[in-house]
Amino acid sequence: MSNKVLCLIVDNSSGVLARITSLFSRRGFNIESLTVASTDDDFISRITVSVHGNDQIIEQMINQSLKLEQVQKVFILEPELSLFRELLLVKLSASEKTRGSIREIADIYGASIVDLSPESMMLELTGKPSKINGFIAILSEYEILEMCRTGINALERGVPRHTVHKVK
Amino acid sequence: MSNKVLCLIVDNSSGVLARITSLFSRRGFNIESLTVASTDDDFISRITVSVHGNDQIIEQMINQSLKLEQVQKVFILEPELSLFRELLLVKLSASEKTRGSIREIADIYGASIVDLSPESMMLELTGKPSKINGFIAILSEYEILEMCRTGINALERGVPRHTVHKVK
Repeated sequence: MSNKVLCLIVDNSSGVLARITSLFSRRGFNIESLTVASTDDDFISRITVSVHGNDQIIEQMINQSLKLEQVQKVFILEPELSLFRELLLVKLSASEKTRGSIREIADIYGASIVDLSPESMMLELTGKPSKINGFIAILSEYEILEMCRTGINALERGVPRHTVHKVK
Repeated sequence: MSNKVLCLIVDNSSGVLARITSLFSRRGFNIESLTVASTDDDFISRITVSVHGNDQIIEQMINQSLKLEQVQKVFILEPELSLFRELLLVKLSASEKTRGSIREIADIYGASIVDLSPESMMLELTGKPSKINGFIAILSEYEILEMCRTGINALERGVPRHTVHKVK
């Protein structure tokens, strides 16, 4: 079993996300995170999905996805060849007493303080998923009121070398 | 018609994303972007979805979503009360000639150069969706090889004031 980051290049049409997620769900495939947004081409969306499964199952999911009409391309983003980034917003309960020590942690991680109220503080951090995990772990000393992470966003380094393409 | 950012707090179980996206798709509801990831509670995931529709339809979608067993809470994130952030990775074709001017744009926007190859350059930018759009627009003077944006990530400022809750 391993974690894989898949990228799906799809038509920007209503229903494509539902088809892909139901395909994954029918096979009991666990989605750890997913992001979907448009690209520089308004007709094309890019889905980045982090999944957990063995290589054979992941290979099956790629092949099943490629059978969908709206799916143009699917490829695995290999960690050693790619850049993985994630964005976190986290809101902590913070009083005058705890503000200083929270700020210190934020400084160490390079996080920004993006909102402050008498009872709370909101931090923003961008980085590798492992860095985001570490930041959340250290912040769990405080009361986390709410958090929102994007899930993995990823691009291959250098010129694209994707190996898995759809043959139409 | 307006753009709305919805947040859904859901059980972290296989199939919940498929149910929500198929619910949206059946109603012809257009998802502009969506992110889903776990929270500080491993059993709970948070979905942030940016949608386009009139207020009545959005209200309907919220009520329909709330009928799903795995959906704990749904609320609208109002722009004036919330922080919207997005993360972009973009890879441009870049030679020795164009590198300097791309770097200048990156500096102006506060973007980081996260990868460099003889033929390409990768930039990372975090900011409001409108800033991300502006950055992509100016970069379209160059050849965009690939890009990946997370879609909107959002939290309400200050202490949570969500008004739409599920009554179980």
